[in-house]
Amino acid sequence: MKKQVWIQFNQLEAFMVDVFLSIGVPENDAQTCADVLINSDKRGIDSHGVGRLKPIYYDRIVRQKIQQPTTNLEIIRDKAATAVVDGHHGMGMVVGKQCMEMAIEKARTYGLGMVVARNSTHYGFAAYYPMMACNAGMIGLTGTNARPSIAPTHGVENMLGTNPLVFGMPTDEGFPFTNDYATSIIQRGKIEQYEREGIDCPAGLIIDRQGKTKTDSVQILKDLVAGQAALAPIGGISEETGGHKGYGFATVVELLSSALQQGAFLKQLSGLTEEGEPRAYSLGHFFMAIDIDHFCDLEEFKKTSGEVLRALRNSQKAPGADRIYTCGEKEHLAGIDREGKGAPINEVLQNQLIQMRDEQGLTQYRFSFEAK
Amino acid sequence: MKKQVWIQFNQLEAFMVDVFLSIGVPENDAQTCADVLINSDKRGIDSHGVGRLKPIYYDRIVRQKIQQPTTNLEIIRDKAATAVVDGHHGMGMVVGKQCMEMAIEKARTYGLGMVVARNSTHYGFAAYYPMMACNAGMIGLTGTNARPSIAPTHGVENMLGTNPLVFGMPTDEGFPFTNDYATSIIQRGKIEQYEREGIDCPAGLIIDRQGKTKTDSVQILKDLVAGQAALAPIGGISEETGGHKGYGFATVVELLSSALQQGAFLKQLSGLTEEGEPRAYSLGHFFMAIDIDHFCDLEEFKKTSGEVLRALRNSQKAPGADRIYTCGEKEHLAGIDREGKGAPINEVLQNQLIQMRDEQGLTQYRFSFEAK
Repeated sequence: MKKQVWIQFNQLEAFMVDVFLSIGVPENDAQTCADVLINSDKRGIDSHGVGRLKPIYYDRIVRQKIQQPTTNLEIIRDKAATAVVDGHHGMGMVVGKQCMEMAIEKARTYGLGMVVARNSTHYGFAAYYPMMACNAGMIGLTGTNARPSIAPTHGVENMLGTNPLVFGMPTDEGFPFTNDYATSIIQRGKIEQYEREGIDCPAGLIIDRQGKTKTDSVQILKDLVAGQAALAPIGGISEETGGHKGYGFATVVELLSSALQQGAFLKQLSGLTEEGEPRAYSLGHFFMAIDIDHFCDLEEFKKTSGEVLRALRNSQKAPGADRIYTCGEKEHLAGIDREGKGAPINEVLQNQLIQMRDEQGLTQYRFSFEAK
Repeated sequence: MKKQVWIQFNQLEAFMVDVFLSIGVPENDAQTCADVLINSDKRGIDSHGVGRLKPIYYDRIVRQKIQQPTTNLEIIRDKAATAVVDGHHGMGMVVGKQCMEMAIEKARTYGLGMVVARNSTHYGFAAYYPMMACNAGMIGLTGTNARPSIAPTHGVENMLGTNPLVFGMPTDEGFPFTNDYATSIIQRGKIEQYEREGIDCPAGLIIDRQGKTKTDSVQILKDLVAGQAALAPIGGISEETGGHKGYGFATVVELLSSALQQGAFLKQLSGLTEEGEPRAYSLGHFFMAIDIDHFCDLEEFKKTSGEVLRALRNSQKAPGADRIYTCGEKEHLAGIDREGKGAPINEVLQNQLIQMRDEQGLTQYRFSFEAK
């Protein structure tokens, strides 16, 4: 076993498909789920890629039995530009992809489409869905609630999920604008990554019940689940630094992820029964597509959006700063950097891959990090 | 003249209508403009109320001649759920109200409606328009670009407007959820208020070209116009504190306010020609309405959204904190507090009111603060 190795994307993706198949996810759905995860690794977002295969999907289906491998997407209501679906605790990525496909189809007809889902599960990295819209020449928007993690301004209790509010917009630059960020300063996935890498979390991002900051990544993850710590919203803990604005965006996402679909919210998403037993997360998501053709010529839109982003990057840098980025650019650059290289797999993750392989008898896989 | 007096809303509103009429704004439009301004004062948002009548509307029409008192709203494109309009530098509030009315009407039919505007002008406090949607039983969303003020992460140049991204959602509480915040930590209107009140701006919210913080409110407003200072986005100046997330939201608003309507953006919105002469601002806005009835029962939605907000307010407070607020609550409480009391009018504003009154010969108005 080596400390960290790089594994090619195609091997990881094929392995993930086979793991999903082995635990009962149907063929097409397994490909969708693996595609969402591997695309996060390709974008350099290790917090939401193959590193989540075991804890967030495999274990919840096989061990905790709080998620269904088959996704029976029920359409509760389907009107002109809108729809409401129930995911019945199937695969969040399958729910997400189907919802965004519906939103895109509606937008093609009416200019706009919006689909909301309830009783779903973790849908991977959020930008995946707006990027589907971008590929269709549209603006995409999505958000999801999640396990209670963020404290309201003037509060210390973990109430709101990390609730991303993510737009995707086409540009003439070969990759779309995507602001795929949690509405907390730091997100759970990043702390999980710190944990896997054995690194402390920076100060000021987490508060405990006494209003003090925490830094031990392992302990933070436990405390977050136990409700003994909370994430600060974007803007920080106080109103003076604008914390109420991040708290506002987190609340917007919580409302759009629950009220329209009459789904679960806040503490109901703890993943635990009152007796402390694991239970389904019942997440809510929303998806919106805006067909640019209904407003203006798509190429003109892309030219303008590209010009805005280039002007930002070309503006005066702070003394000592190398460059200015725009949203989605770092992920695009990571993708170029990782071409032919794959994803970094640390020791914790190596053990997870071996365990899933062995448990499911996927004997055709042998990894480069295994002892000869 | 007294340092600060309170003037009843109905007197201020009537005066504003007459000022608008006297400078050529048609009757209905004058009422709309005054309604937007007075509702900001009623919500306790003094930065966007009567205090802006002279500098942002009156002076731009009468002195700088960069804004039209009559609003010839041209509908460039009108399709199923979408429309594009050109405001031809008329009154931003008139453009805004008409756009949101169109979006609401479209949402009634299709479930969603979105209208974007170009060549508009300052449209007042942004929450006004989502609140129109809330009154119609809908979710509302709006944003606008503005004079370049915010620096990108790793940059020091004022590039982006204070670009609010504002949602309004109905609740069962008698007032809607509205997160009417700039995507900077502090917004121009608040600095203008500090200036009127002769107060310094807190440190850490403004950076100069050398990357250092500024606090002199009078100087900041000059430096912002001259491009020698910039606002930090929500999250602050660095990525470690999440500044790139606020910068991301500011960019989202800039793109949605320019690319779909093929309008102006960033430095084009300086309000100055290359020779330094005043010119029209050519702002862009977007307006969206989401008809809740197309998703679920409106009363059920309101019940859920109210429950989410009450749970947040009732969660554990930080040691020393009096209470936890939800978005729109402070404005609602300010409204109750100001009933029968009116708006605070400081000395600077008293002089402005007298000057406009005298210039326009509105001799029927005599204010309580004038010498007997």
